[in-house]
Amino acid sequence: MLTNFERAKAVMRQNGLDALVATTPENVAYLTGFWILSILRHRTRQVFAVITPESDKADIVISRGLADGAITQNARVNEYHLYGNFFLCDHSRDGADAEAARFMTILDNSPAYPGAVEALAGCLTRRGAASGRIGLDQGTDAVGLGTLLKTTLPGIASMPAYDLFRQIRICKTEAEVDRIRKAIAITEGALGEAIMSIGEGVGEDEVALAFTTGVARRGGLQSLDCIGSGPRGAFPSVGATSRKIRRGDVVRFDVGCIADCYHADMARIAVLGEPLPKVQRYHDAITAGEKAIIAAMKPGVATADLFRLGVETVRKAGIPHYERTHCGHGNGIEGYDLPQISPSDKTILEPGMVLCVETPYYEPGFAGIQIEDIVVIREQGAERLTTLEQKLFVV
Amino acid sequence: MLTNFERAKAVMRQNGLDALVATTPENVAYLTGFWILSILRHRTRQVFAVITPESDKADIVISRGLADGAITQNARVNEYHLYGNFFLCDHSRDGADAEAARFMTILDNSPAYPGAVEALAGCLTRRGAASGRIGLDQGTDAVGLGTLLKTTLPGIASMPAYDLFRQIRICKTEAEVDRIRKAIAITEGALGEAIMSIGEGVGEDEVALAFTTGVARRGGLQSLDCIGSGPRGAFPSVGATSRKIRRGDVVRFDVGCIADCYHADMARIAVLGEPLPKVQRYHDAITAGEKAIIAAMKPGVATADLFRLGVETVRKAGIPHYERTHCGHGNGIEGYDLPQISPSDKTILEPGMVLCVETPYYEPGFAGIQIEDIVVIREQGAERLTTLEQKLFVV
Repeated sequence: MLTNFERAKAVMRQNGLDALVATTPENVAYLTGFWILSILRHRTRQVFAVITPESDKADIVISRGLADGAITQNARVNEYHLYGNFFLCDHSRDGADAEAARFMTILDNSPAYPGAVEALAGCLTRRGAASGRIGLDQGTDAVGLGTLLKTTLPGIASMPAYDLFRQIRICKTEAEVDRIRKAIAITEGALGEAIMSIGEGVGEDEVALAFTTGVARRGGLQSLDCIGSGPRGAFPSVGATSRKIRRGDVVRFDVGCIADCYHADMARIAVLGEPLPKVQRYHDAITAGEKAIIAAMKPGVATADLFRLGVETVRKAGIPHYERTHCGHGNGIEGYDLPQISPSDKTILEPGMVLCVETPYYEPGFAGIQIEDIVVIREQGAERLTTLEQKLFVV
Repeated sequence: MLTNFERAKAVMRQNGLDALVATTPENVAYLTGFWILSILRHRTRQVFAVITPESDKADIVISRGLADGAITQNARVNEYHLYGNFFLCDHSRDGADAEAARFMTILDNSPAYPGAVEALAGCLTRRGAASGRIGLDQGTDAVGLGTLLKTTLPGIASMPAYDLFRQIRICKTEAEVDRIRKAIAITEGALGEAIMSIGEGVGEDEVALAFTTGVARRGGLQSLDCIGSGPRGAFPSVGATSRKIRRGDVVRFDVGCIADCYHADMARIAVLGEPLPKVQRYHDAITAGEKAIIAAMKPGVATADLFRLGVETVRKAGIPHYERTHCGHGNGIEGYDLPQISPSDKTILEPGMVLCVETPYYEPGFAGIQIEDIVVIREQGAERLTTLEQKLFVV
C-alpha cells in the first residue's frame, strides 16, 4: 500500500477535515495506485480520489471511459463513482473472461453521474461529508472545481490541500521505497550504458540517446536527462546538443526516470581520459560534502544543519568559494517532494523520509561537477538506495 | 513561430484583456518555445509567459536556476524576468564561449526579483498592465497565484484564461504542423517495429516494449501506449500485460508520443494470422466511417455534422449497432486540443485545425477495433499527416 494512512488521518484531524480529495495524477495514484500514462496528455481529464478519517481505502471518481484503467490495474478502491457516457458493445458478455466480467460488473453496479462534479458531490455525500469541511487538492484545476462543488453542495467548506498531501507523503511506506528502488535500478542501468557510450567525437546527443533508450528498454519513463559535456555541463538544466566530446571533457549526468509512478533522480560525473587535477580535486570536495551529509542523517537531525554541514565540508575539502541554495530534496511520487536540505527548511528527519542528497558545483567556462544519491532515513541512519559507486568515472 | 499571434490578439481584444499570462508548461512553450523535460517533475515549479495585445514576442518569468534552459534553447523571448537565487561560480567568465557568455549576460542584465509572484508583478508593470485586466491561465496552480498577484498589484483584475489559450491554439501555425509531423514520424516508425514484433506466444508487454523503445530511440517521449491483444483490446485504456498473443488475436494499438512538445495520437489494428470474417468486416466498417469523415472535412463544415456522418457510415457499412460519444479531437501541444468531433460541439472547421479522426469499436469478450489518423484542415479539404496505410495489418 502506497498511502501512509496514519499520517493522512493525523493531517485530517489537525485540520478538522471530514474528507480529503486528491485531484493531481500523483495524489490520485498515491491514494489508489491508479496511474496511466495517458493522463499526461489530458490536462482537463478529471479523476479524483477521496478519503475520510475513517477510510482504509479511497473512493475514486472517474469517467466511464477511463475506469477500465483503474479496474484492470487492480487499483486499491473502496467504491467507484462513475461519470459520463462511454459506449461498449457488450453483446459478447457471456464470452467474457474474469477480467472483463469484473470490469463490466463494476460498470453495472457503481453509482453513476452525468459529470465529474456531480460524481464528486455524490461520493462526498455517501461518505457523510456533504456538509462538512474538506481538503481539496488544488494542484491541478482547469475548471474551477471548488466553486463548482460549492454550487452542487452549498453546505460544504473547503481548504486548499495540495500542501497537505505533500505533508502526508513526506514519510514513505515500504511499498513506496520499493518503487523508488525500481526507478533507481532502471536509472543506474541506463546511466551505466550512457557512460560506456562516451568516446572522442561522440555527440552529447548520442550519449543522451543511450540513456533515454536504456530507460525505455528497461520499462522506465523518461523524466530527467540533464546531460552536458565540457563547459556546457555548467548549465544547471543542460540539454544535450550535437557538441562532440573531446579528450579531457567532464560529462555531467543529472538523470532519472519514473517507474510505477515513482521517481529516481541521481547524478554522476564521467571524464574522457585522465581528469585535470582541478576536476579530480573539485570532485573529491563535493563528494566529501555529499558523503558527510549522508553520514550525519538520522531521525532527529535538522535539514538546515545538514545543509550547513554539506557546504562547510565542501569548502574545507577543496572549494573554499562553494555556495549553494540547497543540498537536496525529497523524492517520491513527485520528483521534488518535501523536505528540502536548505538553510530555511524547518524539517527534523523522521524514519521513512526519502531524500536526494546533492552538492553540485557549476562553473561556466569550466564544467559542472555533481554527485547525487538517494537515501531513506531508518532508525539507525541513512540507507543509501542508489548503488552506483560514488566516484569520478574515468572512461 | 509556434504562437498564432493573430488569434491571441483577437482573443485578448474580445475579452478586453491588457495581458495574457501562461502558467502551464504547454502554454509557456506555446508562447516561447521553451520546454524542458524536468518541468514534468515539479508541479510547484513556476514559469510564466506574458503577452499583451502589442506583443510580437512573449516575456518570460523564470527562476534563475532554470533560465539556462530557455536561453540555451534560444527561446523566443522579449525580456527575461528572473527570480530566486542560484549560485554559479563565474571565475572562468573570460574563458566562456558564446553560449555561456550569452547566458551570463542575460542573467546580469535582466530584472530580478525575490520570488515568482513579484517577478510576474514586475513583468506586468513593465508591460503597462499593472492595473489592467489580465487573463490568467489557471491550468496549473499549486500556490493560489491569482490571490497572491492581487495582493502585490491591488489594481489588477483577472479572469481565468486556460480556456482562452485553448481557443487561441485551435488553429495551428505551420511550425506547429511541422512538429506534429515529427511526432507522427516517430510514432509510425515505432508502431511499425511493434507490429513486426507480434508473433505466437509473444507477450503484449514485449510488443509494448518494442513500441516504447522505438519511440525513445527515435528521440520521442512516451505519452500514449494503449496496446492490448485479443479480448483485452476492448478495454478502452488498455495497458499491456504478460498475456501471450495467440493465432487469430486482434492487437489494438492506440499509440503516440511527444516530439518537441507536440503530440501524435493514432491507431491501427494488427491480426496474427488470417482474421476472422467478423474482424475484417468490422474493420472495414469503422475504416469506412473514419475515411468518410476525413473526405468531408473542409473549412465551413460543422464538427457535429462530421460526427453524425461517421457514426451513420459505420452503421451502414457493417456495424448497425455502432454507438460513440465522439469521433475525434484536436491534437497539438496538448494531446486533447479543441475541437471535438461530437454531437454537442459547436465548431465550424477552419484552415489550420489539426484533428485526430477515429471511429473505435469496443466489444468486451471479442476485441477492440480502431483506426485513427491525424489531419490538418487546408482550404481545399483535409490533408492527412499520418502516412501509414489505413488497413488491417495481417502479420
